[in-house]
Amino acid sequence: MRILGIDPGVATVGFGVIEAQAGRQQMIQYGAITTPAGQPLAARLVQIAQDMETLITQFQPDEMSIEELFFSKNITTGIAVAHARGVILYTAERLHLPVYEYTPMQIKQAVVGYGLADKHQVMDMTRRLLKLKSIPRPDDAADALAIAMCRARSATSLLRRKDPDVKETV
Amino acid sequence: MRILGIDPGVATVGFGVIEAQAGRQQMIQYGAITTPAGQPLAARLVQIAQDMETLITQFQPDEMSIEELFFSKNITTGIAVAHARGVILYTAERLHLPVYEYTPMQIKQAVVGYGLADKHQVMDMTRRLLKLKSIPRPDDAADALAIAMCRARSATSLLRRKDPDVKETV
Repeated sequence: MRILGIDPGVATVGFGVIEAQAGRQQMIQYGAITTPAGQPLAARLVQIAQDMETLITQFQPDEMSIEELFFSKNITTGIAVAHARGVILYTAERLHLPVYEYTPMQIKQAVVGYGLADKHQVMDMTRRLLKLKSIPRPDDAADALAIAMCRARSATSLLRRKDPDVKETV
Repeated sequence: MRILGIDPGVATVGFGVIEAQAGRQQMIQYGAITTPAGQPLAARLVQIAQDMETLITQFQPDEMSIEELFFSKNITTGIAVAHARGVILYTAERLHLPVYEYTPMQIKQAVVGYGLADKHQVMDMTRRLLKLKSIPRPDDAADALAIAMCRARSATSLLRRKDPDVKETV
């Protein structure tokens, strides 16, 4: 199963593509969609939609995994990110790509095994699980891979639960 | 010049189409796009994009006018509205429709002549300026007409400023 992880934003949309099978995950590609700061928001949203469509067409993921938005700090930034996230969800739905959403705590829990892990722990565990030599750059791409890993490991654990030969240790 | 006013939302997107010429505005159509509460956000966003495209194709506006988002109260609602607003801006840009954004205060100032006017004053003045018998329903449609009127009256006053025979009274 191929999973596209997305870390949404207006200036930078991080993406990470992994292949998940039998509890193991392999990195296929990662990177970032970037839009120029000088452009109007509407034009940047069109570019994000177009680049998302290219990504989905090129990598043919079976599922998309994306972080839920929570804002307690910068509401203005949050509103802008939500505009981009709306266009990303729209593009996935239009191309019939199932979308799964996870909270930051679920992502930390799934990747590190601890819901209050810090950002660097999540990135480093993602790197180790995917057998990468260094933490991917930019941070948005590393985050996107972690979000994809969360989906992979959640889906796997759900599958395991259906297997009567495997005892679940929660 | 034909203006499409939009009051963005996920459950309800209000719209109002007006024709503006020589400082006078005429109502062409108003109404609301609604999406079912039970559906996933991504599916509702696709419906909003499709209905926006139908509106733009049907009424062929020259400009779109939309309110800027400000949130001090309900951040969760604000985040959802911003998802819808992103898809609306995206659709306008993709169809090459110029977008103008106004703050609530600019809308009140342009329609009522007083930036701190209350919601009912704005609706009633919109009704009077457009020579309607009653305030349009739902509220989202009335708001959308006010947003379109704001653009019409702002654009008109800009045009007047370019006319050397007309003295500006601010």
